[in-house]
Amino acid sequence: MSRMAGKQSVMFDRPVEILSHACVAGKKEGEGPLGKKMDVIVEDPKFGKGNWEEGESQFLKTACEIAMRKGGRKKEEVRMAFCGDLLGQMIASSFGIKDLGIPYYGVYGACSSAGAALALAAMAVEGGFADTALAACSSHFGSAEKEFRFPLGYGNQRPYSATWTVTGAGAFLLGSRPETRRREEVQKDGKKEAGRRAKPAKKKKRKVKIRGIVTGKIKDYGTADPFHMGASMAPAAADTIYQALEDFGRVAEDFDCIATGDLGTVGRELLLDLLKKNQVDVRKNHVDCGMEIYSTKEQDAHAGGSGCACSALVLSSLLLPRLESGEWKRILFVPTGALLSQVSANEGRTIPAIAHGIWLEQEGEEECM
Amino acid sequence: MSRMAGKQSVMFDRPVEILSHACVAGKKEGEGPLGKKMDVIVEDPKFGKGNWEEGESQFLKTACEIAMRKGGRKKEEVRMAFCGDLLGQMIASSFGIKDLGIPYYGVYGACSSAGAALALAAMAVEGGFADTALAACSSHFGSAEKEFRFPLGYGNQRPYSATWTVTGAGAFLLGSRPETRRREEVQKDGKKEAGRRAKPAKKKKRKVKIRGIVTGKIKDYGTADPFHMGASMAPAAADTIYQALEDFGRVAEDFDCIATGDLGTVGRELLLDLLKKNQVDVRKNHVDCGMEIYSTKEQDAHAGGSGCACSALVLSSLLLPRLESGEWKRILFVPTGALLSQVSANEGRTIPAIAHGIWLEQEGEEECM
Repeated sequence: MSRMAGKQSVMFDRPVEILSHACVAGKKEGEGPLGKKMDVIVEDPKFGKGNWEEGESQFLKTACEIAMRKGGRKKEEVRMAFCGDLLGQMIASSFGIKDLGIPYYGVYGACSSAGAALALAAMAVEGGFADTALAACSSHFGSAEKEFRFPLGYGNQRPYSATWTVTGAGAFLLGSRPETRRREEVQKDGKKEAGRRAKPAKKKKRKVKIRGIVTGKIKDYGTADPFHMGASMAPAAADTIYQALEDFGRVAEDFDCIATGDLGTVGRELLLDLLKKNQVDVRKNHVDCGMEIYSTKEQDAHAGGSGCACSALVLSSLLLPRLESGEWKRILFVPTGALLSQVSANEGRTIPAIAHGIWLEQEGEEECM
Repeated sequence: MSRMAGKQSVMFDRPVEILSHACVAGKKEGEGPLGKKMDVIVEDPKFGKGNWEEGESQFLKTACEIAMRKGGRKKEEVRMAFCGDLLGQMIASSFGIKDLGIPYYGVYGACSSAGAALALAAMAVEGGFADTALAACSSHFGSAEKEFRFPLGYGNQRPYSATWTVTGAGAFLLGSRPETRRREEVQKDGKKEAGRRAKPAKKKKRKVKIRGIVTGKIKDYGTADPFHMGASMAPAAADTIYQALEDFGRVAEDFDCIATGDLGTVGRELLLDLLKKNQVDVRKNHVDCGMEIYSTKEQDAHAGGSGCACSALVLSSLLLPRLESGEWKRILFVPTGALLSQVSANEGRTIPAIAHGIWLEQEGEEECM
């Protein structure tokens, strides 16, 4: 019955399927290199609401609704939702999910919340506690700057090591698809199924499953600069990646991509150095979501994107599509989070960090290994 | 493989054992009716640290350390920790747990966090994802007033409907105890075991297990007064209790006690009324943890205690001991949380609430049912 792997990981007996996913992006994110791949781009930062926080909730709710629609599940069919955001007391998540009426757990891992939510939702499904579970998270440039740094109206200057909090939300519907259900669908939808088969096999969208997870440990190297969070998070990312390879009995090259959440340009170099000291070289297959979401120079995003939505949007718009198309077979998704608050920062305390790892793979790939 | 019960609950195939538990209380809590049953009473609200927030982290860390010591587990043996608190970005939890180096998920459910942490830790153990998991939470009067209401130095007046945030932390070590391990322990500890048997059977401490959980839904009846949170939380508690009875196929009288977290004197009456409208009468076996922790009149605690630590301390010092002594056989523990932040309150928004349910039972009781 044990699914424990190595020191701090879990390997699922029956990998958990990603039934569907959705990404709802803000204006700046829509103008970036992944803009065309977003499900919805919302130009209004308040999303038609009275303030940024309510707007952020609307991003989250919309992403959840789109994911459920794509996955063919009504809200009543979702047994549990795991959501997180950056705001104090996680108001974006709770106000976002409350109208959906889905049984709910708030999850906090700062910008690593996409990893925490996916890990907990996957465990809920694989353990038989939920047939369908939702993992979602959001962030918002306006609400995050107000929460952690300066109100936007101050027009303060930002150093080049600073990242830009991504406005948007990602949602992922996880589930088990019993054989009976799959057969029923084929029977009901016989014509469409026949039509699909006529298309060339290479265009078929492959299913992606979660094969395992690594629960992160909090790492604190003593940094305390909220404008340089890549430095706080790099040690946590390095630790989780190293442990994942150990626990899963893998080498870095086994993964087509190892994607960190939001280290940015500066944090990425620290990560590569830290891993190299432990004889792990990820230079060739490392991607940082924070460096993918914006054209950093043209869009004045400095070190890159950050926030819970950064890794979630990149996962939904770039990483999962590459697994679904067959371009990639196996990736390690490692969202990173800096665990600071305005109170801890004002008290001059350090910024501890955490990173959770999610092993994602094309369906059927496990048999070939 | 499915452990799903009814609409939103989980019934465990192999109930999860509470290996040990600990409660660390502040001065005022130590002076209350449960004071003598606390593991440690800490007179200094800063617990020897520089500020309330760091003090709160120390409460959490200490409770975790005591629980691990009582449960005979080293920190390296704990696979996952689930912790929560009331502060923005949950700094009490992250700074409290980081030195222990346990793989960690932050859980947010406001004052219901004890329920969310216990539910997630129990699922991790029963699903085979962790052999030992820790659920812990903390709150602190000083840090909470600063976070949600007014700095203490203002000396503002509090209405009688207001609750008093409990200072302290509770920790619960959950695990599976395989037969082989149990036999080994008996062999190693033969003399002590024999000595124990010589005592009268009624003094034997019984094991307590988690048999099931109910994941709460967010309820929002439109209240917006942060000095009257019992009114926000009563509908969520009523909903979870009603659903637990439905999903588990039980009546209220099947439970020796149904314990809500921190509704207080005013919220309790609302709960009883709401349940009565649905033909559920819990007047005889209902206990509110917020009404147990203080001698409300003598200790000037107005409507009672609140905060994550309120339900956690009462569970560890009052409810679990009654199950362990055999006085009670079965209880439903329903911590309640009001999902507000200083930002949402300042924006004039409502206070949604949530309550999670935990079905606790004496070991062996399931066979008799």
